[in-house]
Amino acid sequence: MDTMGRHVIAELWECNIDMLNDIERLERTFVNAALKAGAEVREVAFHKFAPFGVSGVVIISESHLTIHSFPEHGYASIDVYTCGDIIDPNVAVAYIEEHLEAKSTEKLEVPRGMGAVQMKNIKVQ
Amino acid sequence: MDTMGRHVIAELWECNIDMLNDIERLERTFVNAALKAGAEVREVAFHKFAPFGVSGVVIISESHLTIHSFPEHGYASIDVYTCGDIIDPNVAVAYIEEHLEAKSTEKLEVPRGMGAVQMKNIKVQ
Repeated sequence: MDTMGRHVIAELWECNIDMLNDIERLERTFVNAALKAGAEVREVAFHKFAPFGVSGVVIISESHLTIHSFPEHGYASIDVYTCGDIIDPNVAVAYIEEHLEAKSTEKLEVPRGMGAVQMKNIKVQ
Repeated sequence: MDTMGRHVIAELWECNIDMLNDIERLERTFVNAALKAGAEVREVAFHKFAPFGVSGVVIISESHLTIHSFPEHGYASIDVYTCGDIIDPNVAVAYIEEHLEAKSTEKLEVPRGMGAVQMKNIKVQ
């Protein structure tokens, strides 16, 4: 398998607070985001913290999706990393943004597995 | 909990090939890397691909560690993301580099949860 990948770091603000604290809905959203992007789901692990917050990961054949939610700040810290050039990680990120009802999003796309980290190829959106 | 975090993206090249294909040793190395940095381990999920490669994640109270290994290329794609300012993600990365016997490493540190993604604060090492 080729090492080339695309890693989107997304900072989602002003999200739906109830959603950010609902482990089952977050897990379902992340699995569906992976499927929507055309990825193959391999492992799913989510964890709820007391009193607030959820951390979770979906391992896909093409790498991973992760979330760390901070309901008390309306913030979700998202990563979607896909190997290869068939799947677009931005499809999964857009699905997550929509379902978390994020009003403000910042994104950074980092090329992976291509040798030296090239600042010029890092895209801030 | 404060949203502030540090996310180190590390590209490890020329690693020990046997290690990169050994799911049990990788899982142990990642759990130990988290503990070494002072993190609290919450969930561990690793997956072996046929014929080569392992993907895995350790969810910690302070965020996560992930790996995607490509033994056929001697390459491991690593993320160590820690919330707060007590734990240094570079401690875990250094432990992983040593145990994977990486001869060449590139690192990028991205500040998380601080509002707008600030290119000036992204450190390439």
